[in-house]
Amino acid sequence: MPQSPIRKLAPLAVAAKARGVKVYHLNIGQPDLPTPQEGLDALMHVGRKTLEYSPSQGIQSYREKLVGYYDKFNIKLDTEDIIVTTGGSEAVQLAFLATLNPGDEIIVPEPAYANYKAFAMTAGAIVKPIHTSIDEGFALPKVEEFEKLIGERTRGILICNPNNPTGYLYSPEEMEQIRQIVKKHDLYLYSDEVYREFAYTGKPYVSACHLEGIEQNVIMIDSVSKRYSECGIRIGAMITKNEEVRKGVMKFCQARLSPPLIGQLIAEASIDASREYCEGCFNEYLERRNCLVEGLNDIPGVYSPVPTGAFYTVARLPVDDCEKFCAWCLTDFNYEGETVMMAPAAGFYFTPGEGRNEVRIAYVLKKEDLKRALVVLKKAIEAYNNLK
Amino acid sequence: MPQSPIRKLAPLAVAAKARGVKVYHLNIGQPDLPTPQEGLDALMHVGRKTLEYSPSQGIQSYREKLVGYYDKFNIKLDTEDIIVTTGGSEAVQLAFLATLNPGDEIIVPEPAYANYKAFAMTAGAIVKPIHTSIDEGFALPKVEEFEKLIGERTRGILICNPNNPTGYLYSPEEMEQIRQIVKKHDLYLYSDEVYREFAYTGKPYVSACHLEGIEQNVIMIDSVSKRYSECGIRIGAMITKNEEVRKGVMKFCQARLSPPLIGQLIAEASIDASREYCEGCFNEYLERRNCLVEGLNDIPGVYSPVPTGAFYTVARLPVDDCEKFCAWCLTDFNYEGETVMMAPAAGFYFTPGEGRNEVRIAYVLKKEDLKRALVVLKKAIEAYNNLK
Repeated sequence: MPQSPIRKLAPLAVAAKARGVKVYHLNIGQPDLPTPQEGLDALMHVGRKTLEYSPSQGIQSYREKLVGYYDKFNIKLDTEDIIVTTGGSEAVQLAFLATLNPGDEIIVPEPAYANYKAFAMTAGAIVKPIHTSIDEGFALPKVEEFEKLIGERTRGILICNPNNPTGYLYSPEEMEQIRQIVKKHDLYLYSDEVYREFAYTGKPYVSACHLEGIEQNVIMIDSVSKRYSECGIRIGAMITKNEEVRKGVMKFCQARLSPPLIGQLIAEASIDASREYCEGCFNEYLERRNCLVEGLNDIPGVYSPVPTGAFYTVARLPVDDCEKFCAWCLTDFNYEGETVMMAPAAGFYFTPGEGRNEVRIAYVLKKEDLKRALVVLKKAIEAYNNLK
Repeated sequence: MPQSPIRKLAPLAVAAKARGVKVYHLNIGQPDLPTPQEGLDALMHVGRKTLEYSPSQGIQSYREKLVGYYDKFNIKLDTEDIIVTTGGSEAVQLAFLATLNPGDEIIVPEPAYANYKAFAMTAGAIVKPIHTSIDEGFALPKVEEFEKLIGERTRGILICNPNNPTGYLYSPEEMEQIRQIVKKHDLYLYSDEVYREFAYTGKPYVSACHLEGIEQNVIMIDSVSKRYSECGIRIGAMITKNEEVRKGVMKFCQARLSPPLIGQLIAEASIDASREYCEGCFNEYLERRNCLVEGLNDIPGVYSPVPTGAFYTVARLPVDDCEKFCAWCLTDFNYEGETVMMAPAAGFYFTPGEGRNEVRIAYVLKKEDLKRALVVLKKAIEAYNNLK
C-alpha cells in the first residue's frame, strides 16, 4: 500500500509549528471557501428524531435532484444511473472492485492522485502509468503510447479531468482520442470529474459521459467535496449507464449498508446553491491561479504551466530533490518566522525516479497568503541552493 | 458476493404495500428508538462555515472521549488504540484487508451477520463456518469443534457478541474458551461488539478486550449505530492494541481520507446521553424481548430460545421452508389487511441447507405492534400449512 507523499511530511509540519514557525499549507486539497449556505441550513433543519440508515444506493430525492444538476452540463442521466457513495474515494474503490479481477491492469496517466493505486491494489489490480510531461503542460500522450501499454489484461483507462495534481483539463480532441481507444479495445473508462466546476478555458466542459458510442464503458466518479467545500460530509457518486457494473457495485453498497444520511441532506440542499456562490468560488480560484502561476514563474528557475482546471499546479523547482527540499523547508528553514509546505510530486508518479524536481501546489489559500507564500518559497530556494 | 436474504424480499414488501397491505417489519436491524437529544443538539450546533475533512483516524476529542466511554465497561484503552471508521462495516472491512491475505481463512460461528462473508471475500479470504444450534440456544461449540477447523491458513476467529442474528450473549466461560484457542494458535480475534449495551443477563459484559494474554490478537469492532439509534451517521471504530494492525488499517484509512465529520460530532455528543436515556432503551428492548419470545413460544410449533442480548431472535417455525414462507407472507397472505416480513435464517448460515425452518426476528417495533404482528404470524402459519 503506497504512502501518500503528504503523510510523510505531516509530522515535520507539526514540529515546525511547535517551534513557532508559521506554515503556509500549499500541500492540501481541502478547499478553504465556505460551504453553501443552503447546505449549512439543511444541517440546521434535519428535524429527525432517529438518524436512520438511508438506502444503499442513496436517497431517492437526492438522486433525482442530481439528474437535474448533471443536465446543466448536458450530461443526460436517469436516476438509476446514479449510486451515491461515501465520498469519491468509495466510488473509485467500488468501481474497481466491481470491474477488475486480481491481475487486471488499468492505464493511468501520471502524475496522478496517489490513492488510485491504493484502490487498485485493494482490488488486486495493477496500475500501468502512461507518462505525461510538464514540458507539454501534462497533455495526453499520443494514441500510440496507449497502444503500447494495452495488453491482454488491460481492462480500463482512468482519467481525472480536470486533473489532480496537474490542474490539466483534457481538450475535446483528447477526449475524442480517449473515446476511440476505449471503443477500439472495449475498455472501461473511469473518469474522475470531481473538479468539473473549475474549468478555466471558457469552453463547455467535456465529460466522459458526453462521448458517443462508449456509454456502456464509462464509469464516472463524482463528489461534492470540492465543488461545495464539503470534504467532511463524505458524499460522492458512482455513475454509469452499464447496468451490470451498477449491479456489481450495489452488492458492495448493500454490504456497507448506506452512505452517510446527513451528508446527503446537505449535498441535496447544496444543489440549490446560488449562482453568486458558484461564480464566486470559480472567480476566486481563477484569480488565485493567475496570482500563483505568475508568482511561480517570476522565481528564477521555477516553471509552472498554466493549469486550466481544478485548484492545483505541478511546478518544476530548481532544486536537486523536491522530497528533500520540502522536508528541509519544514525542518531547517524559515524566513521571518514563516515557511511553506508543498507536496513533492514524486508521490504522484507511479514510475520511480519521476517528478523529483517537481512539487504539487494547491491554491486553497487567500490571495494575500499565496503572495506571501511565494516570497517565502523564493527565499527557501535561494537558501537551499546556497547550502552547497 | 452473497446477496442479503432481506434484499430478495424487499421488492415483494413494496408490492404488498402497493396493494394496501400493512407490513410489520420484523426483518430489519434499524432501531426505531430516538437518537439521544445530545446528539441531535450537536447537529443543530455544528457552527462551521466549511465542512472540512476530519483526520483519517478520527477527531482527537472524540477518540479521547471514547476512552472514557469504554472505561465504564472496564475496557482500558489509549486514544491511539482507536481508529474511527465509516460505520462498523468499514471497521470489519479494513480489519480484514489489513490482516488477511488471499486464501487465508477465518472461523465464524454460524448463523452470522451475512455481510461478514462479503467483507472476507473482498479481502480474498475464506469463511469457515462453525455450526451453532437453536436447540442449544446457539451456545458456542466445544473447543474440539474449533480445533477441527484450524489449519495452516487459519488466521482468526470472528465473533459477534451479543450476536446478530441469534441475540446470544457469550458466557464468561465461553469467552475464556475462545481466549485459550486464540492464544494456543496465535489467531486474530475479531470481536464485533456493537450490541454491547444490550446484554440482559444482569452480569457485567465480557469484552474480547478483557481477555488477558491475547491483547495483541484482539481487534474489536464497534459502532454507534445500534446503541444510540444512529445508523445513518455511519460512525464506527476499529480498536486494537496491536500497533502493526493499526498501521495497516491506517493506510486504507488515509486512502479513503476521513470518516464522516458531522457523524463524529453527533457521536461524540451522544456519549453524554443521560442515564435515563440509556436505561430507557435497555428496558424497552428487554420488555419487547420478553413480549416477543413469550408470544412466539405460544404459537403452536414455534420455538425461540430466550436471547440474552441485542434485539434479535432466531426462531424455528413449523413450515417446510422459511424462504418460501417469508415470500408467501408478502405475496399471497394477509390477515385483516396485515402481514409480516421476516428474514429467512438460511441467509445467515454459510452452510447450504442450514436454517431452512428458521427466521430472524428483530424487535425494533413498539410492543403493541409486536403483539399484533405475533397474531398475524400465527394466522400466517396456519394458513400456509392449510394450503397443502
